[in-house]
Amino acid sequence: MIRYYKIGEPIETGSTVMSVPQEEMQLPGWQYDFDKKQISRGLSPDSVVYGLGETVRGMNKKGWLYVSNNTDDPVHTEGKHSLYASQNFILYADGDEKFGLFIDTPGKVCFDIGYTDMRQFSIGFEDMDAGLYLIEDESLPGIAKEFRRLTGHSYIPPKWAFGYGQSRWSYMNADEVRDVVKAYRENHMPLDMVYLDIDYMDHYKDFTVNEDAFPHFSEFVEEMKEEGIHLVPIIDAGVKIEKGYEVYEEGLEKGYFCKKEDGTELVAAVWPGKVHFPDFLNDEARKWFGDWYGVLLRQGIDGFWNDMNEPAIFYTEDHLGEVFRQIEDYKDKNLDIRSFFAFQDLVGSVANHPSDYKRFFHEYQGQRIRHDKVHNLYGYYMTRAAGEAFERLSPEKRILLFSRSSYAGMHRYGGVWTGDNCSWWSHLLLNIQQMPGLNMCGFLYSGADTGGFGDDCTEDLLLRWTAFSLFTPLFRNHSAQGTRRQEPYLYGSTEDFRNLLSIRYALLPYIYSEFMKAALEDGMYMMPLSFGYPQDQRARKVEDQLLVGESLMIAPVYVQNAAGRYVYLPEDMKMIRMRSPEDFEEEILQKGDHYIPAALNEVVFFLRPGHALPLAGAAETVDQIDYGTLRYITYRAEADSYELYNDNGVDRI
Amino acid sequence: MIRYYKIGEPIETGSTVMSVPQEEMQLPGWQYDFDKKQISRGLSPDSVVYGLGETVRGMNKKGWLYVSNNTDDPVHTEGKHSLYASQNFILYADGDEKFGLFIDTPGKVCFDIGYTDMRQFSIGFEDMDAGLYLIEDESLPGIAKEFRRLTGHSYIPPKWAFGYGQSRWSYMNADEVRDVVKAYRENHMPLDMVYLDIDYMDHYKDFTVNEDAFPHFSEFVEEMKEEGIHLVPIIDAGVKIEKGYEVYEEGLEKGYFCKKEDGTELVAAVWPGKVHFPDFLNDEARKWFGDWYGVLLRQGIDGFWNDMNEPAIFYTEDHLGEVFRQIEDYKDKNLDIRSFFAFQDLVGSVANHPSDYKRFFHEYQGQRIRHDKVHNLYGYYMTRAAGEAFERLSPEKRILLFSRSSYAGMHRYGGVWTGDNCSWWSHLLLNIQQMPGLNMCGFLYSGADTGGFGDDCTEDLLLRWTAFSLFTPLFRNHSAQGTRRQEPYLYGSTEDFRNLLSIRYALLPYIYSEFMKAALEDGMYMMPLSFGYPQDQRARKVEDQLLVGESLMIAPVYVQNAAGRYVYLPEDMKMIRMRSPEDFEEEILQKGDHYIPAALNEVVFFLRPGHALPLAGAAETVDQIDYGTLRYITYRAEADSYELYNDNGVDRI
Repeated sequence: MIRYYKIGEPIETGSTVMSVPQEEMQLPGWQYDFDKKQISRGLSPDSVVYGLGETVRGMNKKGWLYVSNNTDDPVHTEGKHSLYASQNFILYADGDEKFGLFIDTPGKVCFDIGYTDMRQFSIGFEDMDAGLYLIEDESLPGIAKEFRRLTGHSYIPPKWAFGYGQSRWSYMNADEVRDVVKAYRENHMPLDMVYLDIDYMDHYKDFTVNEDAFPHFSEFVEEMKEEGIHLVPIIDAGVKIEKGYEVYEEGLEKGYFCKKEDGTELVAAVWPGKVHFPDFLNDEARKWFGDWYGVLLRQGIDGFWNDMNEPAIFYTEDHLGEVFRQIEDYKDKNLDIRSFFAFQDLVGSVANHPSDYKRFFHEYQGQRIRHDKVHNLYGYYMTRAAGEAFERLSPEKRILLFSRSSYAGMHRYGGVWTGDNCSWWSHLLLNIQQMPGLNMCGFLYSGADTGGFGDDCTEDLLLRWTAFSLFTPLFRNHSAQGTRRQEPYLYGSTEDFRNLLSIRYALLPYIYSEFMKAALEDGMYMMPLSFGYPQDQRARKVEDQLLVGESLMIAPVYVQNAAGRYVYLPEDMKMIRMRSPEDFEEEILQKGDHYIPAALNEVVFFLRPGHALPLAGAAETVDQIDYGTLRYITYRAEADSYELYNDNGVDRI
Repeated sequence: MIRYYKIGEPIETGSTVMSVPQEEMQLPGWQYDFDKKQISRGLSPDSVVYGLGETVRGMNKKGWLYVSNNTDDPVHTEGKHSLYASQNFILYADGDEKFGLFIDTPGKVCFDIGYTDMRQFSIGFEDMDAGLYLIEDESLPGIAKEFRRLTGHSYIPPKWAFGYGQSRWSYMNADEVRDVVKAYRENHMPLDMVYLDIDYMDHYKDFTVNEDAFPHFSEFVEEMKEEGIHLVPIIDAGVKIEKGYEVYEEGLEKGYFCKKEDGTELVAAVWPGKVHFPDFLNDEARKWFGDWYGVLLRQGIDGFWNDMNEPAIFYTEDHLGEVFRQIEDYKDKNLDIRSFFAFQDLVGSVANHPSDYKRFFHEYQGQRIRHDKVHNLYGYYMTRAAGEAFERLSPEKRILLFSRSSYAGMHRYGGVWTGDNCSWWSHLLLNIQQMPGLNMCGFLYSGADTGGFGDDCTEDLLLRWTAFSLFTPLFRNHSAQGTRRQEPYLYGSTEDFRNLLSIRYALLPYIYSEFMKAALEDGMYMMPLSFGYPQDQRARKVEDQLLVGESLMIAPVYVQNAAGRYVYLPEDMKMIRMRSPEDFEEEILQKGDHYIPAALNEVVFFLRPGHALPLAGAAETVDQIDYGTLRYITYRAEADSYELYNDNGVDRI
């Protein structure tokens, strides 16, 4: 049951696919405060608040202030309030009371979930304009399903995108890519994708390829396909200002770039240096930008990741000019300490400066709207540009697409990755905890940079993280320039890494089947335990175990130097301790608490009673998986009780 | 058994109190590589490496690179290599093989403990000069004890310093302090100390008091003493350059400040603006600076915390000049992105710039030595200045003293706090994990800023952190300017906070007794489980429980929204679930694994068999604790089996 309540005059976001009649009254159970621009209600000690997609902290969002304000911030510590995405859907459960609430507004929203006062939940707005969708159902998965009925079915990538991918900022040329693929193949480590970060482009110009580094690109794409490898290039939001660069010239001529108050194009700087931002919110501009993806599609590319689309702004020409003028004031002074810090802050806060988001405008639904009022939509509409284009340019075949920034509704067009995390054990836990939140909000095709993007990874961290990520739909290893290389064959435990990656491919029929059923039936692929065991009070508090599809529960190890971990079983389960698809043990464990040893080369997971798990034989690409020889591990179930979904993996559905 | 091996010609550090004859051979079991300037050995999968005092990550230091290079870095994430202290003592355990190793050298040391290669432990030097002390004993506590025999007994503070303290950067005037004390007393929350951060001073000048904000300071100190409150002012390393300021004038005249190559004093900037750094390594300068503490002692002050003594440098006059000259190069350019980042980094990296630590010199042991060669000693020698002065100026009475920066050996003169942590749950865990490392290295009087210094605290975090910190010798709540106020009476759960603080005071006879026995017998107050249960393989892997003195084991809750946690009992124990000193339950639990519920208002801890725990009645200051009415909780022991240490709490020992 979905009810719609409106506050003020919210700007349309494009998040929903159905129209819900507006209720006359206010949202029941919530107090409205028009002076403070917030709505609020009490928060009982036993309540649990899920949702908000990709945010810091645990699955239960209680005890922090989350601000929907898409931000390129690469340091995802507990103290942060905003990451790259705004997925304003929460799911409240307190005993038998449960509801979902979707706050549909494209500007900043503050979710104070027991932060200021443990006993109080308030939602604050910059402008008191918002669409509020109250969603009720008998079960938590039912509420998540209703939210999908409201906002649309989730994006489905090609099946090969469920393979494993290797990335780096950046493989600088074709030979570096060839070396990576060769090392994988020689080590018999499965691999389906290599990602191309920004340096594949000619001077970071979207839809170009550096011909010196990647000569005869379409032939190279073909060569890689013959190795079973899909190349997945990055696309950035900003378009380089450069005379003669066609995307720039065309966008300028047609007026498709975001303009300032005075009608001139905003000049911002990101990787290419000075850029204009396409106005993805403008229907025509969006179609125009989307069509450009065709340039790469025609060279054989069938997957993309959209980046820098919060949008990240290193600086704007206008603001940097102001900064340099202000520096003059400091230069000749005998700086006192406060002035020194002010000076340092002046320079240090140039990137993503709040003032810059008020300098430019969109043509959106026939109106000129200042960017900050619709800020959280920008990444969504960039990805929508691509997704809609793919429907035109590749009407038969699915294209891989995921994005860094997002807003509710974008899940119809692409997946997300969780951005620039770090090689921290706490970020492995964060990855585990973000997954169900993303799934609730419809972002099924998602995952984090395995091993961590920033900072230096260690072998044990990469082993443990791989042992978790092999369950996530998007499964790639990625790391930043300047950090320790993170390709798994560069560490000592080559055989262990090969085995872990092989387990992914052995589980792939299950993973794909469960993902597809979730996508087609508006379900969730990864869930908190309480979604499967609503009456179990203990399960409600478990923050580091997940249900994966209908058959499995996982309990990843995320602590350095740990030899195992505690696991809570909400019912009897069969533990599977797997070192490789051919080397595993099964053991029935009773409902309750267990300390489970788990070595660095083991994946320990749990089969729920009444369920079966299909297991494929060896494969080094998704295409090689032999569905004719599936084995089944079962627990109080017949193998044929498992409803296996499969298809050719590329046709659109 | 202590053996001494020498590499090159190490600079004397003042860490040891005994002379060990030098062995002729190389350190057995280690390979020396003079080209790489490192020594190394293998690292077996089952080995555990403890020690290094105050560092990031777990108790078991395996899997990371730790760099001894005292650094004022307020963001203690997992990716960092250096914090404020250098405590180069490690304790290795692998099955029955165990040893301690103390690397005695005042420059940078890199401990690569299975970071580059999980199977390898290497220790690298900038100069291949180091004293290596190999310490062997039958037990891990025995090795820690031998280390203390080598480096001296631990500092003992007055007993009132085991009370609870409230701090803030800063209470700006006497009335603010009065308000804090009043709020504590009205709420019947125990309190013994209020800390004065930098703003009590006149323009951040050491050993001055802002007479406008704190008029008639000695009378105010006396007024607070009558309330049972000790005021504990901060002392910073840098001395303000200001004509007529006596400390400055005197230091300049006597030549006690650190000089540059050209013989002029280094001009650095910290809180007061431009400062000189006293040359604490120079015996005369150290005595001179120490004597200045007498100015505050004579006003009734009996406790100090030494800060900014890595030393932190916001900038040096020389370096900032260079930066401004370089900015000129950027100003008129059409900045490309790499240049922009270089520009931003130029300004952003001004603080604690490596070049600045090579700009000045010390007069140390008759030699002129460049600062970076003895960098890690600076904080130690500042605190030694104070500690030695107190022996002269207060020969009868103990003075509270702790420091941010430290080096092995400083533990004879003062304690440490763990610096500018954050209000993060992960830093509560870090606090738990740092305590045994600090204890091993002799820093018994230690603790973290309860509730976290940076970022904003939540009520639940403060409750959980308080429930842990009430076991740490140094127990204070401290928070930074600009963050949410953190005084416990400002949250809703006043009664819960009162009860938690009261539990500290009820346990104080035990805490003081166990601390004093550890200090007098070179033992440890907080230990990893494996120190008490060396044969227990599971205990060796437990990273979030501690032995506290001889009777107790604690297992703090450090996860937000958790309703309890798992606890491993290495033997049968009596669980004590305490809501207040008058409201608790006892329950015998069997050896093994348990899930233990623990509400936000509960402290759950464990009494070991054969032991007793004294418990005092209500008290709002340490002085009020009535030793005549102690009760005992016992488990398979008689109350009188507990050896209670007590003394008058102020006389030197």
